[in-house]
Amino acid sequence: MAAEHDLIARYFAPLAGPEGHGLLDDAASVDPPAGFDLVVTTDLVAEGIHFLDDPPGAIAAKALRVNLSDLAAKGARPYAYSLALGLGPEKDERWIAAFAEGLAADQKTYDVRLIGGDTSRLSTGVVVTITAFGWVPTAGAVLRSTARPGDVLMVSGTIGDAALGLLVRKGATLHLEDKADCDFLLQRYLYPEPRVGLANGVRRFASAAMDISDGLAGDLGKLCLASGVGAEITVADIPLSDAARRASLADSDLVPLIHTGGDDYEILLAASPDNAIVVAEAARLAHVPLTPIGRIVAGSDVIFRRFDGTRMSFGATAYDHFSVARTD
Amino acid sequence: MAAEHDLIARYFAPLAGPEGHGLLDDAASVDPPAGFDLVVTTDLVAEGIHFLDDPPGAIAAKALRVNLSDLAAKGARPYAYSLALGLGPEKDERWIAAFAEGLAADQKTYDVRLIGGDTSRLSTGVVVTITAFGWVPTAGAVLRSTARPGDVLMVSGTIGDAALGLLVRKGATLHLEDKADCDFLLQRYLYPEPRVGLANGVRRFASAAMDISDGLAGDLGKLCLASGVGAEITVADIPLSDAARRASLADSDLVPLIHTGGDDYEILLAASPDNAIVVAEAARLAHVPLTPIGRIVAGSDVIFRRFDGTRMSFGATAYDHFSVARTD
Repeated sequence: MAAEHDLIARYFAPLAGPEGHGLLDDAASVDPPAGFDLVVTTDLVAEGIHFLDDPPGAIAAKALRVNLSDLAAKGARPYAYSLALGLGPEKDERWIAAFAEGLAADQKTYDVRLIGGDTSRLSTGVVVTITAFGWVPTAGAVLRSTARPGDVLMVSGTIGDAALGLLVRKGATLHLEDKADCDFLLQRYLYPEPRVGLANGVRRFASAAMDISDGLAGDLGKLCLASGVGAEITVADIPLSDAARRASLADSDLVPLIHTGGDDYEILLAASPDNAIVVAEAARLAHVPLTPIGRIVAGSDVIFRRFDGTRMSFGATAYDHFSVARTD
Repeated sequence: MAAEHDLIARYFAPLAGPEGHGLLDDAASVDPPAGFDLVVTTDLVAEGIHFLDDPPGAIAAKALRVNLSDLAAKGARPYAYSLALGLGPEKDERWIAAFAEGLAADQKTYDVRLIGGDTSRLSTGVVVTITAFGWVPTAGAVLRSTARPGDVLMVSGTIGDAALGLLVRKGATLHLEDKADCDFLLQRYLYPEPRVGLANGVRRFASAAMDISDGLAGDLGKLCLASGVGAEITVADIPLSDAARRASLADSDLVPLIHTGGDDYEILLAASPDNAIVVAEAARLAHVPLTPIGRIVAGSDVIFRRFDGTRMSFGATAYDHFSVARTD
């Protein structure tokens, strides 16, 4: 195995923007554009917790995308990221090369650059921490604490695919007849799709937003708590993929998992009824599905209603990466 | 153990600045001051590699200070940091409380604030990644690639204490008669002292600078390589603490370790002869020892000379946290 500086020069320096000084220095210097706030988000993903022994390129993609998802939910245009990569001794140079390839592909897709970071051996496993940077016009970041009663609640994409995909990753077939359904769910787990194209619409028209990383039910609860409001959701309006729909038909016990399982990385937003119409148009232009699922109400209750108006209740409210070692 | 959001609210939200939105949101938003560049640095420290099972407050201090050391070496005023904390299941809430206390104490000392982060369980151990932010006047960051022949080389503080302190941490007595010497070296290993007070002098008067994290010999080699220059060092001028001096007298085999061992977190700078005089005065005002140890020369050779002019050579050039699992 080559020394750290050789590995950095070979695999990571080609990913760096000019403000990263070729990753030869100890720090990057960024000249902020006038009239913009810097939006900063940090997410760490760890082997055995957020992923299994997945392909290195998929781990790279997940580590970067979960951060880009946060930026999009704040309405920020992604700009750059720093990378801290900790690797157990079992990960060799080929692993690092594949990991860097995954980053390179996503840098092109999402127009971001590496500006710095650190590498270290760990006693075991993989721990990747990415801090991502984006820009919004000054004071333009969209918070989760500013939803108002009367706002329409909307979610991007489809909900629950990744939680089902994790079951597939662990060997479950979910009684699905078509292997393509399993493959779809697995891909949704391995490769979250940050809704970068929706960022501008979120920034201009959402009254509050966050990305859904710990399950729709739990994260909606967090948004409501932070905003001092309640919510009413029509369960039948929650957008599901065909694969998730078929899985829930084959085993209705999966329904709560769809609403509470983690790793969706879709955007949950609240917008006034007038703005909801416009943000829906912005989403169409960006080719991002965006579906109204309910509304913000006064109070503090978060209610999921069936067709007949009865309330569903969830035992677990939010997926907790800290208390639970998911993949044990 | 409480859930993640409760732990964050209890221990980390009190450390957050207003731009961190109480750590309740997914991202921080920072309004950059006009006329300044943002300096960004990331360092990860891992149990078994950068520290042993040390007190949580010491781990917190090391994780933060190694980053502040990088900012100081670039001439940046420290501003804020984000924290990614990965913890094995053996670390309980008391551990987290002590870790947060360590951060709180250092936030006061160094006038920085937490603006965001992430926590996660790991399968084992502790991995802490901090990304630190500072400000320099636009284009004012000091690089390691801009040293010029004729520049005076200077180092802050004393060299080699931390490498000896690690031996003490692992049970060695270093033939030192006075336990206070061992304690001093151990403290230097556990609690690096970022030279924040020297940042302004570095920015105004140094032609190049970096912090010494992987040993004086190796890091000087990196500075020279990046600058396309060589260097001549007078070994007798390298500043040692009394404890390190006594240890090297008791066992002269320790001398190479002093020059090549890691974790000094002192500043190595180059300055023109005129500027070297002024930066020395700036250091005195800041109560930071700063010692001339040699000069930058044309070419690419990095030479350490004894009194008689003969050259010392080092087998290992730089401590490499990646190739070597130091604390095994």
